[in-house]
Amino acid sequence: MKKKPQRKRARVERSSQKRRPKNPHFEPISTELATIGKGFQARGWALGTSGNFSAVVSREPLRLAITATGLDKAELATEQFLEIDEEANVVRGNGKPSAETLLHLAIVRGAGAGAVLHTHSVSSTVLSGAHARQGGIALEGYEMLKGLEGVRTHEHREWLPILENSQDMVELSRRVSSTLQESPGIHGFLLREHGLYTWGVTLAEAKRHVEILEFLMEVLVRSGAAQSS
Amino acid sequence: MKKKPQRKRARVERSSQKRRPKNPHFEPISTELATIGKGFQARGWALGTSGNFSAVVSREPLRLAITATGLDKAELATEQFLEIDEEANVVRGNGKPSAETLLHLAIVRGAGAGAVLHTHSVSSTVLSGAHARQGGIALEGYEMLKGLEGVRTHEHREWLPILENSQDMVELSRRVSSTLQESPGIHGFLLREHGLYTWGVTLAEAKRHVEILEFLMEVLVRSGAAQSS
Amino acid sequence: MKKKPQRKRARVERSSQKRRPKNPHFEPISTELATIGKGFQARGWALGTSGNFSAVVSREPLRLAITATGLDKAELATEQFLEIDEEANVVRGNGKPSAETLLHLAIVRGAGAGAVLHTHSVSSTVLSGAHARQGGIALEGYEMLKGLEGVRTHEHREWLPILENSQDMVELSRRVSSTLQESPGIHGFLLREHGLYTWGVTLAEAKRHVEILEFLMEVLVRSGAAQSS
Amino acid sequence: MKKKPQRKRARVERSSQKRRPKNPHFEPISTELATIGKGFQARGWALGTSGNFSAVVSREPLRLAITATGLDKAELATEQFLEIDEEANVVRGNGKPSAETLLHLAIVRGAGAGAVLHTHSVSSTVLSGAHARQGGIALEGYEMLKGLEGVRTHEHREWLPILENSQDMVELSRRVSSTLQESPGIHGFLLREHGLYTWGVTLAEAKRHVEILEFLMEVLVRSGAAQSS
Repeated sequence: MKKKPQRKRARVERSSQKRRPKNPHFEPISTELATIGKGFQARGWALGTSGNFSAVVSREPLRLAITATGLDKAELATEQFLEIDEEANVVRGNGKPSAETLLHLAIVRGAGAGAVLHTHSVSSTVLSGAHARQGGIALEGYEMLKGLEGVRTHEHREWLPILENSQDMVELSRRVSSTLQESPGIHGFLLREHGLYTWGVTLAEAKRHVEILEFLMEVLVRSGAAQSS
Repeated sequence: MKKKPQRKRARVERSSQKRRPKNPHFEPISTELATIGKGFQARGWALGTSGNFSAVVSREPLRLAITATGLDKAELATEQFLEIDEEANVVRGNGKPSAETLLHLAIVRGAGAGAVLHTHSVSSTVLSGAHARQGGIALEGYEMLKGLEGVRTHEHREWLPILENSQDMVELSRRVSSTLQESPGIHGFLLREHGLYTWGVTLAEAKRHVEILEFLMEVLVRSGAAQSS
Repeated sequence: MKKKPQRKRARVERSSQKRRPKNPHFEPISTELATIGKGFQARGWALGTSGNFSAVVSREPLRLAITATGLDKAELATEQFLEIDEEANVVRGNGKPSAETLLHLAIVRGAGAGAVLHTHSVSSTVLSGAHARQGGIALEGYEMLKGLEGVRTHEHREWLPILENSQDMVELSRRVSSTLQESPGIHGFLLREHGLYTWGVTLAEAKRHVEILEFLMEVLVRSGAAQSS
Repeated sequence: MKKKPQRKRARVERSSQKRRPKNPHFEPISTELATIGKGFQARGWALGTSGNFSAVVSREPLRLAITATGLDKAELATEQFLEIDEEANVVRGNGKPSAETLLHLAIVRGAGAGAVLHTHSVSSTVLSGAHARQGGIALEGYEMLKGLEGVRTHEHREWLPILENSQDMVELSRRVSSTLQESPGIHGFLLREHGLYTWGVTLAEAKRHVEILEFLMEVLVRSGAAQSS
């Protein structure tokens, strides 16, 4: 039983190799994503197999490296990443892509992102619950905001939308696309009692945005914003 | 005085080796448990020799690998695990099994668990004290709940029972068994001002459940649930 | 100028070597203390050169290994420990002993301790300020209390006295001695807005007591005990 | 396009080498700064490329080693430091100096500092916002204050001024200079919702001051000082 599916996969790979060679960026990008993901897990931002991380490995055709579903991020490794196409089909690697792959694709398209990082921290869970009724959280006056791409001064008001959580990923990815169209300037959003999505043109930029937004949410919680207003 | 008990143990081992060979799963499972336990200690979930960890190494006859009592979990090592039988007798290894071994056995039997992990965090101590009168804590609406085995949506209500703490382990293990019979769907329970017990079919599942339930308890504390209601 | 004191020390060492050989326990004990101290610093319990750690290396005559003053505990090393006698004179090693050496000696004598550990955490600073007027903090009902030497049940009431802080170490060491005489059952005490002193017959026991008392103080702070009552 | 600027730099280096040899302290000091910076990042005090660190490598003429702008402090390395002169011109190394270089220079001059460290923690962000109207925060009665250079007793009142944040570094560096003239005894100051600046004669002293002031701000936040008074 075990051999047959392997043979089948081997055939698929051979035929796809005819069409085009393996993308050389896939492995180094996956290694970088694994290092970043393990770091987030250590900080408590991706416990219990939560969190998922992706980066664009080619634009034409669109290909993403993305975490397979259900992984313990403490031991995230290069070989646990999948290469997916623009319709979320796996074209390389073993495993099922994260259920939230459609959200990653929506962000890559809607925000022109080169990397999409989803963390699941205590602060984002607390705040996205407490402020759900306001539809988002305003971050204003903090020097740390200057680390968000394109922001030049602390006198900036960043709106972090909160989207109602859902298990219907098609429907949710449409709401993500609409949010990105309506608020082109945002750098991230929260899913209610679920966590943060942020992105960047590069992976380094996306990682920086995670750290900045997680930091500012922690500031809000410590300032007394955990209770709903 | 020291030599006699060693000789006695040697005899017991020899006679048990006649009956059956050493279980080959015991050592690798103990190594995995040690790695997990050290990780929990680093997060502050098993300080001051608290916490104990076990996994099934055989079903017929029932054998568990379990931490010996009184160990500093920062330095937990493979050789510090004991193999115990279905009556909590040590059949392999040196040291006294944890006083709470009977609870592990009750959970293995009552929940069909393959691994049982007991952590002792600040959050679980705080919440199990503050909510003892309600008999438990409800966790509801969180995406993180989906990481609990069998849960498919955040629209799930997980009941985390709080059992009164006791030093009478026979009596307490009976209450644990009753709780598991009365609430077959639960994924863990708290002992009042003592800590969390959770489990899984596999060790990876049990570890995931620890991270999820500790995360959600931290969310509750940060949301203002530390004071009794 | 530099050579003279070195010669003098060389002479002192030679003459003391005549009287007795170097204590062989000093180095391994110092290494253990260094490992423990670095661990505490990593947890934030010994920042800014705070904290000091000692253990008995001989009883007759009384000799302690103790941290020199002013060290960054992140890089604590075996060779930074001093051997001191019963009057706090340095008999081995370079550097000035901690100003609080007299407190360590008072605890070794008054509590029969084999090791004395002083940490300086956020929780102990907060609580010892907020509860100074009550003269101490009661810890009661927690399973974690069972890790304190001699405690058999969570139904134990541990009194953690708070002593007014002082820079007069002779006077303060006398108050420590009185406290130990008046409350022989205690496992530690706080200096107001300064930190925790705890101890054990062995170094492992003292380390366990640090983790337990720091854990329980964190529980109290998270339960809302940070504001003075 | 890439080669030309490299050639130009090569020429500049050659001509400056004629004038004087490379400062031999630059590299070891940069390595020390990198180690300290990575440690701060691990504690969450320099997330999202925030924070910057400098030390004097020569007094006559004045030369500083300082972090280039926009670096991920988790991977801070010796070769990412720049040598700058008294007018903030880069005389060695690749990259743009931090926008806040003028503040470092103002502190080196105004406080006679040998090292200047700027961290960006949650506590300092919270407190500098909540207490901005009072113009500063008083730290009083804490033993930890004794770790600040020149302080001999916990009965000390340390004033930690809060300066309004600005993106005009010339104007802000003037306010820093005035603050240092008006309050010569201070050991650090906060920029509103931005972070901490502290310093020391040596790098070790500056690092100690960071740990002490970050510790005491955490104590204040935990004591309930996060809400504006």
